Amino acid sequence: MDREKVKELLQQVKEQEISVEEAFQSLRGFPYEDLEFAKVDHHRALHKGFPEVIYCPGKTTPQIVEIASRLIQNGADVLATRADYSVFEEFVKEFPEAEYHEMAGAITCFQSQRKREQKGKVVVMAAGTADLNVAEEAALTAELMGSQVVKAYDVGVAGIHRLFDHWEDIKSARAIVAVAGMEGALPSVVGGIAGCPVIAVPTSVGYGASFDGLAPLLTMLNTCASGVAVVNIDNGFGGGYVAALINLGASLEG
Amino acid sequence: MDREKVKELLQQVKEQEISVEEAFQSLRGFPYEDLEFAKVDHHRALHKGFPEVIYCPGKTTPQIVEIASRLIQNGADVLATRADYSVFEEFVKEFPEAEYHEMAGAITCFQSQRKREQKGKVVVMAAGTADLNVAEEAALTAELMGSQVVKAYDVGVAGIHRLFDHWEDIKSARAIVAVAGMEGALPSVVGGIAGCPVIAVPTSVGYGASFDGLAPLLTMLNTCASGVAVVNIDNGFGGGYVAALINLGASLEG
Amino acid sequence: MDREKVKELLQQVKEQEISVEEAFQSLRGFPYEDLEFAKVDHHRALHKGFPEVIYCPGKTTPQIVEIASRLIQNGADVLATRADYSVFEEFVKEFPEAEYHEMAGAITCFQSQRKREQKGKVVVMAAGTADLNVAEEAALTAELMGSQVVKAYDVGVAGIHRLFDHWEDIKSARAIVAVAGMEGALPSVVGGIAGCPVIAVPTSVGYGASFDGLAPLLTMLNTCASGVAVVNIDNGFGGGYVAALINLGASLEG
Amino acid sequence: MDREKVKELLQQVKEQEISVEEAFQSLRGFPYEDLEFAKVDHHRALHKGFPEVIYCPGKTTPQIVEIASRLIQNGADVLATRADYSVFEEFVKEFPEAEYHEMAGAITCFQSQRKREQKGKVVVMAAGTADLNVAEEAALTAELMGSQVVKAYDVGVAGIHRLFDHWEDIKSARAIVAVAGMEGALPSVVGGIAGCPVIAVPTSVGYGASFDGLAPLLTMLNTCASGVAVVNIDNGFGGGYVAALINLGASLEG
Amino acid sequence: MDREKVKELLQQVKEQEISVEEAFQSLRGFPYEDLEFAKVDHHRALHKGFPEVIYCPGKTTPQIVEIASRLIQNGADVLATRADYSVFEEFVKEFPEAEYHEMAGAITCFQSQRKREQKGKVVVMAAGTADLNVAEEAALTAELMGSQVVKAYDVGVAGIHRLFDHWEDIKSARAIVAVAGMEGALPSVVGGIAGCPVIAVPTSVGYGASFDGLAPLLTMLNTCASGVAVVNIDNGFGGGYVAALINLGASLEG
Amino acid sequence: MDREKVKELLQQVKEQEISVEEAFQSLRGFPYEDLEFAKVDHHRALHKGFPEVIYCPGKTTPQIVEIASRLIQNGADVLATRADYSVFEEFVKEFPEAEYHEMAGAITCFQSQRKREQKGKVVVMAAGTADLNVAEEAALTAELMGSQVVKAYDVGVAGIHRLFDHWEDIKSARAIVAVAGMEGALPSVVGGIAGCPVIAVPTSVGYGASFDGLAPLLTMLNTCASGVAVVNIDNGFGGGYVAALINLGASLEG
Amino acid sequence: MDREKVKELLQQVKEQEISVEEAFQSLRGFPYEDLEFAKVDHHRALHKGFPEVIYCPGKTTPQIVEIASRLIQNGADVLATRADYSVFEEFVKEFPEAEYHEMAGAITCFQSQRKREQKGKVVVMAAGTADLNVAEEAALTAELMGSQVVKAYDVGVAGIHRLFDHWEDIKSARAIVAVAGMEGALPSVVGGIAGCPVIAVPTSVGYGASFDGLAPLLTMLNTCASGVAVVNIDNGFGGGYVAALINLGASLEG
Amino acid sequence: MDREKVKELLQQVKEQEISVEEAFQSLRGFPYEDLEFAKVDHHRALHKGFPEVIYCPGKTTPQIVEIASRLIQNGADVLATRADYSVFEEFVKEFPEAEYHEMAGAITCFQSQRKREQKGKVVVMAAGTADLNVAEEAALTAELMGSQVVKAYDVGVAGIHRLFDHWEDIKSARAIVAVAGMEGALPSVVGGIAGCPVIAVPTSVGYGASFDGLAPLLTMLNTCASGVAVVNIDNGFGGGYVAALINLGASLEG
Repeated sequence: MDREKVKELLQQVKEQEISVEEAFQSLRGFPYEDLEFAKVDHHRALHKGFPEVIYCPGKTTPQIVEIASRLIQNGADVLATRADYSVFEEFVKEFPEAEYHEMAGAITCFQSQRKREQKGKVVVMAAGTADLNVAEEAALTAELMGSQVVKAYDVGVAGIHRLFDHWEDIKSARAIVAVAGMEGALPSVVGGIAGCPVIAVPTSVGYGASFDGLAPLLTMLNTCASGVAVVNIDNGFGGGYVAALINLGASLEG
Repeated sequence: MDREKVKELLQQVKEQEISVEEAFQSLRGFPYEDLEFAKVDHHRALHKGFPEVIYCPGKTTPQIVEIASRLIQNGADVLATRADYSVFEEFVKEFPEAEYHEMAGAITCFQSQRKREQKGKVVVMAAGTADLNVAEEAALTAELMGSQVVKAYDVGVAGIHRLFDHWEDIKSARAIVAVAGMEGALPSVVGGIAGCPVIAVPTSVGYGASFDGLAPLLTMLNTCASGVAVVNIDNGFGGGYVAALINLGASLEG
Repeated sequence: MDREKVKELLQQVKEQEISVEEAFQSLRGFPYEDLEFAKVDHHRALHKGFPEVIYCPGKTTPQIVEIASRLIQNGADVLATRADYSVFEEFVKEFPEAEYHEMAGAITCFQSQRKREQKGKVVVMAAGTADLNVAEEAALTAELMGSQVVKAYDVGVAGIHRLFDHWEDIKSARAIVAVAGMEGALPSVVGGIAGCPVIAVPTSVGYGASFDGLAPLLTMLNTCASGVAVVNIDNGFGGGYVAALINLGASLEG
Repeated sequence: MDREKVKELLQQVKEQEISVEEAFQSLRGFPYEDLEFAKVDHHRALHKGFPEVIYCPGKTTPQIVEIASRLIQNGADVLATRADYSVFEEFVKEFPEAEYHEMAGAITCFQSQRKREQKGKVVVMAAGTADLNVAEEAALTAELMGSQVVKAYDVGVAGIHRLFDHWEDIKSARAIVAVAGMEGALPSVVGGIAGCPVIAVPTSVGYGASFDGLAPLLTMLNTCASGVAVVNIDNGFGGGYVAALINLGASLEG
Repeated sequence: MDREKVKELLQQVKEQEISVEEAFQSLRGFPYEDLEFAKVDHHRALHKGFPEVIYCPGKTTPQIVEIASRLIQNGADVLATRADYSVFEEFVKEFPEAEYHEMAGAITCFQSQRKREQKGKVVVMAAGTADLNVAEEAALTAELMGSQVVKAYDVGVAGIHRLFDHWEDIKSARAIVAVAGMEGALPSVVGGIAGCPVIAVPTSVGYGASFDGLAPLLTMLNTCASGVAVVNIDNGFGGGYVAALINLGASLEG
Repeated sequence: MDREKVKELLQQVKEQEISVEEAFQSLRGFPYEDLEFAKVDHHRALHKGFPEVIYCPGKTTPQIVEIASRLIQNGADVLATRADYSVFEEFVKEFPEAEYHEMAGAITCFQSQRKREQKGKVVVMAAGTADLNVAEEAALTAELMGSQVVKAYDVGVAGIHRLFDHWEDIKSARAIVAVAGMEGALPSVVGGIAGCPVIAVPTSVGYGASFDGLAPLLTMLNTCASGVAVVNIDNGFGGGYVAALINLGASLEG
Repeated sequence: MDREKVKELLQQVKEQEISVEEAFQSLRGFPYEDLEFAKVDHHRALHKGFPEVIYCPGKTTPQIVEIASRLIQNGADVLATRADYSVFEEFVKEFPEAEYHEMAGAITCFQSQRKREQKGKVVVMAAGTADLNVAEEAALTAELMGSQVVKAYDVGVAGIHRLFDHWEDIKSARAIVAVAGMEGALPSVVGGIAGCPVIAVPTSVGYGASFDGLAPLLTMLNTCASGVAVVNIDNGFGGGYVAALINLGASLEG
Repeated sequence: MDREKVKELLQQVKEQEISVEEAFQSLRGFPYEDLEFAKVDHHRALHKGFPEVIYCPGKTTPQIVEIASRLIQNGADVLATRADYSVFEEFVKEFPEAEYHEMAGAITCFQSQRKREQKGKVVVMAAGTADLNVAEEAALTAELMGSQVVKAYDVGVAGIHRLFDHWEDIKSARAIVAVAGMEGALPSVVGGIAGCPVIAVPTSVGYGASFDGLAPLLTMLNTCASGVAVVNIDNGFGGGYVAALINLGASLEG
């Protein structure tokens, strides 16, 4: 423990086991180790039990499995996002308790005895069926972080009345994730109704002048509804993560 | 009548009043004159009494007045768009019957005896108060082309309930012009409800990632509502013109 | 029927079968159901017999077939756009009356006894042979919605004279769909001639500085011809849909 | 009160003062009025005492004053953003209790007896001195919504050590607003340290390849730090609003 | 010959072999045929013997072969650009005299007895070896149109001295095609030396911030050398065509 | 004369008037002087009498006058582009023979005795009245370089028939400059008719999705007409320069 | 001095003037102060005597003067970039020793006794006269940092021979700053010749498709010359700074 | 040796072995050969022993092997970048001493007796594991050019403390290459700490609004840290090359 190491060092100086100069030299490199433990410690306090996340694209299956191994050995729960089923097939050989979440395209591997209470309420909304992968990634992330998640899918603004079936959930949510491709108008409409923060997730679903998600991204950034903030295109994980932080802040801090 | 002129020419050849060579020379230039009159004639049939339009930006006041003069002498009604009041002050000296439409930023000058019947129903909707200039240009254009116009302003999607106060108008419209800046989601929502075509007009109202109207333009092009088509940013005239054509087609052709 | 349900509820109040409080609770959720039936009803009135549309990209063949099943059981006609032939092969096993439209890349499945009258006139123009898929999607859509469709293909502006062979059709059309890739100038030229609205459809046909259809999209948005509105890149369905709405408005409402 | 109106209507039916048909006609328009009151009511519950906001650009001073009048007469507190001092000069003639916040470029006008408790903790960070206007708008917004605000300015990543002077505040914040122009890296660095959500606000401060804030906007959207969401360029109000919602959710709901 | 056909028609009227009505019917379609022959005639004068061009991408091999058939039956020479070798294999079965130009990726099929004189001088320069396909397409096009072509490859500006080995050719050229990807600076340097027009062809060769040829395109459009004009990215055919027109104008018209 | 200087140097070595070492030192700097004279010489041959051009933006009036002075003292004719009238007022004090060309926004100052013959034929076409400044700059440039110029203005494609009034000029041109803003379709249409090269000049005339001339620029680069090449947005000088080079090559070289 | 403070603290522990716990508490905040002094110290070693820089845009004159005051009181030399002359007029009242550099648009204020030796060789090249402001800012920056600067202006690639007059300087430079607008090809050409690193500075000089400097920026990033790196558009200071670091590294470290 | 050749030529003139005319003819081509040798000579002086580089994409394996052959026969060392292993398999048949560097995706082939001393210190930093290929290309390039390279990988700003473990290396580096995708903030943070130039390499690692590396590219260009310059997206070679030039300038010139 670093704090202990510092105190020990000071003790050694006090007891004159080492010179002031030697202590000074030892302390030169210290701040960043301190930074390290501070961060860890801080995370301990606030994030206790959050899973560690592996973003799979651009990593080979052996790399993914190895990173997971190291984390699991340290007692962490693991969430691997954007993982093909073929990755899971290798993964599960090593960790039989791992699960594959097909729609979210994610692998989870949790220490079996651990059971996280689902608190608060995060509503994950998706405009179209083609947005579901991103929405499921958001929902899974928020759940794994300890949030109760309610899903409201296929509620795009072109059929605005369907949105209203979810009136009660929108009103009682502590955070909403609104996922939409095409024109991306869902967060604007939801943001005009909801009382809690809305995290907008544009998707690359669309064609032509969608320009791979640029269109809904700009829509969401330009929303005239207050209370909406945006994450990167297709970033379901990011949307779920922020929403869960908001939800848990509300739940834990009270 | 040119068709007649051609037949007459052929008759003259037949009757040997002119030589084959002379007839050939006369026919050389004919197609394009024919094209010319065809177009005029065609317009007569369909567009009878439409005003001629002068787009003012980039023209000096004397140029605008002179173009208007030529048109008015030919019996045309005139609509001058994006005209400053200072243009109107010069304009009205020459044509005392001219009127200035402040919100639309337009001058009209109509032959006094003419009175156009207002037919059908065009609904002009605007999302925010800052979009009103563009909406008014659309409304004025549609009116001058003989459409009955109903205005529904300040109905942006962030307060979606205000939109529903206009339910009856949306249902009974023959064409709708939906004007919106910021995220530009209005046409998507209206397009999901309306049964008639919706002409979407993005505006440059907004800031930051609006990029001068690019954001609502992309939103509108990517709408998942069927029945929506888009004109250029801030092009109220274009939106009103297309809507009036649709409205009048429905009214006149029956 | 919802209207009936509301009246019935009021009747029950009147007859004191339920209390005011109970009625109020029942009415709380009502608006959106009302919204629902209003929309359906409205569509009934105007859109009677329009096919339901399934946009295939991003859906698996089983999903497409299942969605179609549900619609067909409800008596709907179905149009599935951007469908590969392999989708059709599965589709036709389930619905032997289905047809594949190769150039449009679409499947249709119509209740056999139904025969829609082809009214009015929609002209679908395409600038080049590479734009035909998009044009055929537009033409098929307009036809299925009950429009008489005339096709004028390979009429790009670089050979402007070919356009004039279609003079009579352009003059008599109630709506025109103008499909073009590359520089996308066709709608400008047609818009200068036609008396009816022109729906411009940019395509991603082209290379280099076409930037996947951005070039013709901007061309069409900036047209100096009045009466032109634009839909998304490659959105033949959207172009045909708007044109059919315009055409039918003109035909039905008279 | 609409709820009352509905109940009254039902009562009248019950007491046979009006017919079922008459009640039905009255109820036709009701859903949206219901939507209206629902929304208002909902806001009352969650947002009690939030100021109403007027976005000033594109509005004339008389328009701004009139909108403010209407709101103030309804008992609302008012926040007018992006207001020049010249606007304030007219404003204060009408409402002597109004205040001008120079750095934020905002006017506030609060009912004198009202005093909002400052709860929780929102940290507003700004990378450079040129970002202060946006940061101040965020801070003022959060404060007016009842948040305790701590400011940490001039903490850009090029002098990363200055950031660490605010270690304690970052650790104890319930929400952080991170404002940055130029390369916009501040939210990434803060997001890697903080345990609460970070709302990133890109600014148009910069030159050349900043492209009016596009550069920091993209930076923030692409952050590899979890827990960061983004609002529009220069949208200090939006950043402060979301952060305050998060902060108050945590404070109020416990 | 159409002119003759018109005169003959008139002669027939004169000689009363056909009625005026019949002649009129024949003339109805005439303007555009006239337009056609005018164009053809004009081309005859200037372009005598130019090959007809088929742009292959997006066409099936049978389509390409059929289009070629029709042209060849009309006595045309044919140039098919961007053709895979697999296209050629089918092509040559039908037209054994066809040739495949591998580097240019083009098929030519010329009437055997025809032999075009190579006049004037077109210099085709390419900055890097990866630009050769585009350069060869330009060179082949110019050659087929009757230009003497000199090639100067691998003369990019990063080794500016290599450019000077071609000093004499640059000085004596009547038109230069300068092909370059990456930063696309070659036309600027050549344009500063040459006395004839330089047709710049940007290529999509490059990576990263080349953005598929956007970088060299912008470079070339912004050249501060006079006498440079630009065609589309990778448009070797277009560059060769314009250069040949310039070269032949100079050669033929004197 | 440098060639002579080199020979003289060699002669001096031969006659032993200077040492080999001295000659070598003299030759060290020679290549670039040689390059210099080569270029000058080359220009002499081809460009005899072309004016020198000063691009005025970003230069102060004194700078412009001084640069002109130096050129005029060397016997050059001068063309100063994009010059305000205020620049001309100072200019003409120094050079009373200077002329101001208002529409082109240019100053010319020619040695009085010089009179350039107007050869060949360059047609300068402009789509709209707002494009005239750019077109006039092109026309003036081509004229000053010794080309006969024919102007055809206000021939935009939305009124395609007006274009055909210029049929004869288009057919007989040796080079065409086609200037257009908005959708920029003019060069495509002209390029489909003309037999000579067409130099397309996009202008920044337009609004909304014109994006300061990006729209017509892309249109022109993507033209499906052969024989079209493009210069920078608003670059009338560049368009006129290339067209004149083409025209004169055809005229001079024969 | 922080090092001293740490040592003193350790001394106090050693001498038991404070407890280990007290020392630990004092050290908690220390790392960042340590970071601070480390950085300062590091700068001392390498950057001794570098001026402090104030970027003026977006700061009021009083703010600039106050920041300068604080720096000058600490003994620093000051460089204020992008300063109007009006700023200088106020500045010089406070600091009479300040100088204004008109072309660079910069103010310098140096402690009078200090005289920096000009070491090594930085060549600052500019393509056109309109690029001189940026080039001068680069040159001034490099000079103030202790570099000998050689300027080579008006050496754009369209007159490539002028570049070669600077052959010797290019060959002997330790770092080159190449400033160019328009097509921005200068760094590519120079990078192909030079043996030292070339820092490319794009400028916003240009028009049309320059898009405010995007064109030369992309050109420079895509250079096929090795040894070229790029700074932001118009960032003369940045270019000069990097070049000076390179030059001084070479000079100091040997 | 060319200098000798010139002198010899002059000697021959002097000794009348050749005529003045013959000498002149020989000298005509000389400048560019001189340019050539000058460049070569210059490179000899500064770059002695640098490998020749082959950029493999767009070249066939036989082409790559042949280019390598020619270079190796001339005694050069060869570095082939972006080479697949399949290229290496052919390569090594011809040159058994060749080595494949898997992470860098590069082939090296060095003359066996040659051993380059590793001088100075270049630190290559990479933000994420997905950036390693680019970083390894940079490191390999710098090493081959004779630089001692220290690698610091996985030091992205979201875990800023990890960066500080490399404090000593950053402080003692003569040049730093900072490779980062996603938001690309690493160079800003490093640039604020380092005393030497930082060459920033954006990578296309990322998704959504990364737009293939545009996001980190803009971030790096907009850095507010002095001393940072940028190369093209994914251009590890370019980054390593510039850094090595800087490092060696510092090492060699002293």
